[in-house]
Amino acid sequence: MQVSVRVPKKKSKSVLVVEPKAESGAKQAQPIRQDGKGITFPIGFKAAGVHCGIRKAKKDVALIVSDGPAAFAAAYTTNKVKAAPLIVCESNLSDHCEAIVINSGNANCMTGQQGMADAWEMVSATARHLGIESHLVAVASTGVIGRALPMDAVRVGIQEAARSLDYGADAGSSASDAILTTDTFAKLAEIEIALSGGKVRLGGMAKGAGMIAPEMRVGHATTLSFVTTDAKVSPTLLRKLLASGVDSSFNQITIDGDTSTNDMCAVLANGASGVTVEDADDVQKFAAALEHILISLASSVARDGEGATKLIEVVVTGAANDDDAKKIAKTVASSSLVKSAVWGADPNPGRIAAAAGRAGAELVVAKMTVTLGKGASATAIISNGALNESDLEKARAAFQEKEVVISIDLGLGSGKSRAWGCDLTPEYVDINGRYTT
Amino acid sequence: MQVSVRVPKKKSKSVLVVEPKAESGAKQAQPIRQDGKGITFPIGFKAAGVHCGIRKAKKDVALIVSDGPAAFAAAYTTNKVKAAPLIVCESNLSDHCEAIVINSGNANCMTGQQGMADAWEMVSATARHLGIESHLVAVASTGVIGRALPMDAVRVGIQEAARSLDYGADAGSSASDAILTTDTFAKLAEIEIALSGGKVRLGGMAKGAGMIAPEMRVGHATTLSFVTTDAKVSPTLLRKLLASGVDSSFNQITIDGDTSTNDMCAVLANGASGVTVEDADDVQKFAAALEHILISLASSVARDGEGATKLIEVVVTGAANDDDAKKIAKTVASSSLVKSAVWGADPNPGRIAAAAGRAGAELVVAKMTVTLGKGASATAIISNGALNESDLEKARAAFQEKEVVISIDLGLGSGKSRAWGCDLTPEYVDINGRYTT
Repeated sequence: MQVSVRVPKKKSKSVLVVEPKAESGAKQAQPIRQDGKGITFPIGFKAAGVHCGIRKAKKDVALIVSDGPAAFAAAYTTNKVKAAPLIVCESNLSDHCEAIVINSGNANCMTGQQGMADAWEMVSATARHLGIESHLVAVASTGVIGRALPMDAVRVGIQEAARSLDYGADAGSSASDAILTTDTFAKLAEIEIALSGGKVRLGGMAKGAGMIAPEMRVGHATTLSFVTTDAKVSPTLLRKLLASGVDSSFNQITIDGDTSTNDMCAVLANGASGVTVEDADDVQKFAAALEHILISLASSVARDGEGATKLIEVVVTGAANDDDAKKIAKTVASSSLVKSAVWGADPNPGRIAAAAGRAGAELVVAKMTVTLGKGASATAIISNGALNESDLEKARAAFQEKEVVISIDLGLGSGKSRAWGCDLTPEYVDINGRYTT
Repeated sequence: MQVSVRVPKKKSKSVLVVEPKAESGAKQAQPIRQDGKGITFPIGFKAAGVHCGIRKAKKDVALIVSDGPAAFAAAYTTNKVKAAPLIVCESNLSDHCEAIVINSGNANCMTGQQGMADAWEMVSATARHLGIESHLVAVASTGVIGRALPMDAVRVGIQEAARSLDYGADAGSSASDAILTTDTFAKLAEIEIALSGGKVRLGGMAKGAGMIAPEMRVGHATTLSFVTTDAKVSPTLLRKLLASGVDSSFNQITIDGDTSTNDMCAVLANGASGVTVEDADDVQKFAAALEHILISLASSVARDGEGATKLIEVVVTGAANDDDAKKIAKTVASSSLVKSAVWGADPNPGRIAAAAGRAGAELVVAKMTVTLGKGASATAIISNGALNESDLEKARAAFQEKEVVISIDLGLGSGKSRAWGCDLTPEYVDINGRYTT
């Protein structure tokens, strides 16, 4: 076996100019711009975000508090290495929740018995400062894996957050700031819809830029996302709607294919609007609004992938069934080769087909059409399984957009799905080559 | 939804210094160093590699020819988008093969009916120039997807290759040169073993640096690999040994998770040694030698991953079963976060556990041990599911090696497996952001 080992060219590492995306003093002085209200948009939700010292300078503890117990549903990661706060939530909460305490900068994962004790203490400290029962408190963490939480700081953080709770946009914005890690912008969403009994509001916030390929299951999902609503919804219905909403949103995004140990998506419905979601028409409207919030948050997470410069949306139609469509959409969105080609605007659409072909779904090459771009500038680059070489320049133009839309029609059935990802850039590698350093 | 889009920092692209890895005139003038014989090491195999113009300057057509029909077994990709040459091989060949014609620079994939006709013509032209039957000729292609083969050049190439066929190291080396694409070094392997009836030899060559995550099944695998042997082996036994050999070698390597449309691994056994592999002891020795060749070639492909600077070997033991061990080994080796951390020598071993946890295998965190490095410098960085923070500097040292060994013991059973990958570097992204440009 002859192997002539090449001398590594590490020039890029010293040459790459990647600005620090978190932890810098500058970040604290100039918070990430966000004009929405997010989780404090619905009636009866307070929030806070403070800095206690888990991180160097950025806010690191957030609180979301409902005026009274809210119907609760949550989805947690299916990763078998599960962080302590998720294990605590699964055993501590049932159908209702009044407060969620969240820290960034530390995942409290692979931290053994001490990590479990620390997560429980976050719950009990939050309950004590708010004067509520501890089984109504959820806890979530995000950050580096395998380090003990600095509990002295966390205790002060929870106390400070409880003291600074408030309604309104500023409070929602503070909480959102406090859960971001390598994110470069805040992910907020809000919507107001009219139901038969009156108007209800939904708001949401999310974080996540790396270790993103959620596979969350409701019941027992490191992107963290929190949705609040002042609609009155039964916990059973909320769980059902969250399960289907998470499947078509967070479970269809991918940044790096790495499903986190800490993913979680929680919804609180406090009923403060006095409007109940019950009849079929209202349920449908509410479900659509919830899905809108979840997709808005999820696609923002994909757009803000570590080092990313472009959002990739993959739209699959004509699949044998929805499951096949989901597999193909997510596989194409997660292909390193497709992601690199999009970064460099290299017109290499054969890679899209190659990724579709390995998704484990039914596919007949001769029936497949791949279209790049949307609206008037959309170009069918692969027709009936053959690549249209004369349109390669149009493919390049489509890959130069800030939002790259890849549409795949399989010509087999009525299955459809969407997935969201981002381009793979040298910056992604640089960020993750010195994450803890 | 508030989204403040960041101005992309594309400095890296202009700043990164990535030397062209193929297609350059300089490459042609200075062939990739290789001292082994590869496929011409066994008795009775001729080879050739020529340049015909599919690529700008690099050799692009290779021939492997046995002195008479050889027992044949091959594994092809399971990707549902399958290149024309693979479809032709599956229908053209049965138990024997006398010649394999291979081109680089063009995958002949997604090329419709013309692509099928071109692949068939490569077979018939090879048969004609060699004066053999066309059903004894295999064809393989590697390169860009979706472009028509320049058949005028290919015809000349096949003729030239047939004329320059020869035994010995130079010929084997020429053939190996002609199948490489973004590879930076040749992958050759050879071994001689003593069986009850005398000595037999096995030789092999492989290519591949990107779109590497083979899932090949025997019967009907773009890494291309070709193994020759002068042992006399029945086609049935050869198929069985190849199936198990491919599963523990090429199917356990990953560079970017993108399973190719063109992967193929073929073995030719021409019996020229006069030594038959038949009794149980000989079969076992031959199987071990074949696996040695396949693992040597496969790990070389992983080591030469596009842009890679380090080989990653993941060794899983103590799994519930071998299947679980395989899943975990391959998932850890393919994790973008683990790969980036290895590149930057960032001691973030929690990512190893997170990747193991999402592999879909049985795993109990509290029973898991993760060791970095090998021999005397090996360090147990995760014990009983908890990370040993005091050893993080040792983890950094382990990630600085050219060969990074990650050993995971699950403490559950006797299942074991190995997988090979490479670090993820800014160069990988650069290479694949301008592959066709």
